[in-house]
Amino acid sequence: MTTIRQATPADIPLMHSLVRALAEYEREPHSVKITEEQLLRDGFGANPYYECLIAEEDGRPAGFALYFPIYSTWEGPSLHLEDLFVQPEFRGRGTGKALLQAVAAAAVRRGSARLQWDVLDWNQPAIDFYHSIGAVMHGDWRRMRMTGEALQALATNSDEVTA
Amino acid sequence: MTTIRQATPADIPLMHSLVRALAEYEREPHSVKITEEQLLRDGFGANPYYECLIAEEDGRPAGFALYFPIYSTWEGPSLHLEDLFVQPEFRGRGTGKALLQAVAAAAVRRGSARLQWDVLDWNQPAIDFYHSIGAVMHGDWRRMRMTGEALQALATNSDEVTA
Repeated sequence: MTTIRQATPADIPLMHSLVRALAEYEREPHSVKITEEQLLRDGFGANPYYECLIAEEDGRPAGFALYFPIYSTWEGPSLHLEDLFVQPEFRGRGTGKALLQAVAAAAVRRGSARLQWDVLDWNQPAIDFYHSIGAVMHGDWRRMRMTGEALQALATNSDEVTA
Repeated sequence: MTTIRQATPADIPLMHSLVRALAEYEREPHSVKITEEQLLRDGFGANPYYECLIAEEDGRPAGFALYFPIYSTWEGPSLHLEDLFVQPEFRGRGTGKALLQAVAAAAVRRGSARLQWDVLDWNQPAIDFYHSIGAVMHGDWRRMRMTGEALQALATNSDEVTA
């Protein structure tokens, strides 16, 4: 039986291991720099950055979904699903869909105009699944990112902001 | 002279017109459903969804940048730049770069690990500009989205969430 529940601080070690398992699936195992302490502080403090749902199959942890509010200047408050992952040994019984349904319910409860997430272009099973539940791919957008020294360098050259 | 300043509630009509101008550039003029009232409520209430910077050239409004906090389960708190736009008549004088520098400075001030944004794959001038300032394209991600009836339908089938 599938159960979806809100994550609690006691789930932090589980969440950290699931984040690492997802990164391995995404072929980026070395990209996970976050610590359990950070996950705890950022998700369960006064102004949490994210919310997390845990899926259990017959009482055993099977997967998770992690999401947070974003904003669309076309439609207003929306929800971004950052991570959705089901451990390999629990796949094929609808756990992922149950998680996604629970996130959709959270979006509707908050009055979110949109629920969005990103998928790797080579992950055809995931893409097929998302299409099957009514999601639409907006394939003409590409993600740009700045981190580390490049971000610092760009920021350092900024002195024009007035209050 | 370029000046970058924080938007105030008095800028809402300007922001709304810039959002619409950006949507026209993106060939989606009919996608803007947001009202000035929503922008005001969502950006200047007790828990604002976004922050906005206005660029002025010689005292005239030239463009804007709108961003909000997001979360990376690999690196922690980050910043997403949702909109960056300079009106056509002000292009070519570095206004866009000044806005992006100011957003990068905001990211560094907050301790954001990443600054990210999305670009349309046909907007080569923008892609070239972003690469020139040190941004990296993560081209293997595709955006999925659910809205309206599809989102409602998925949410309605969720009854497994326990507290």
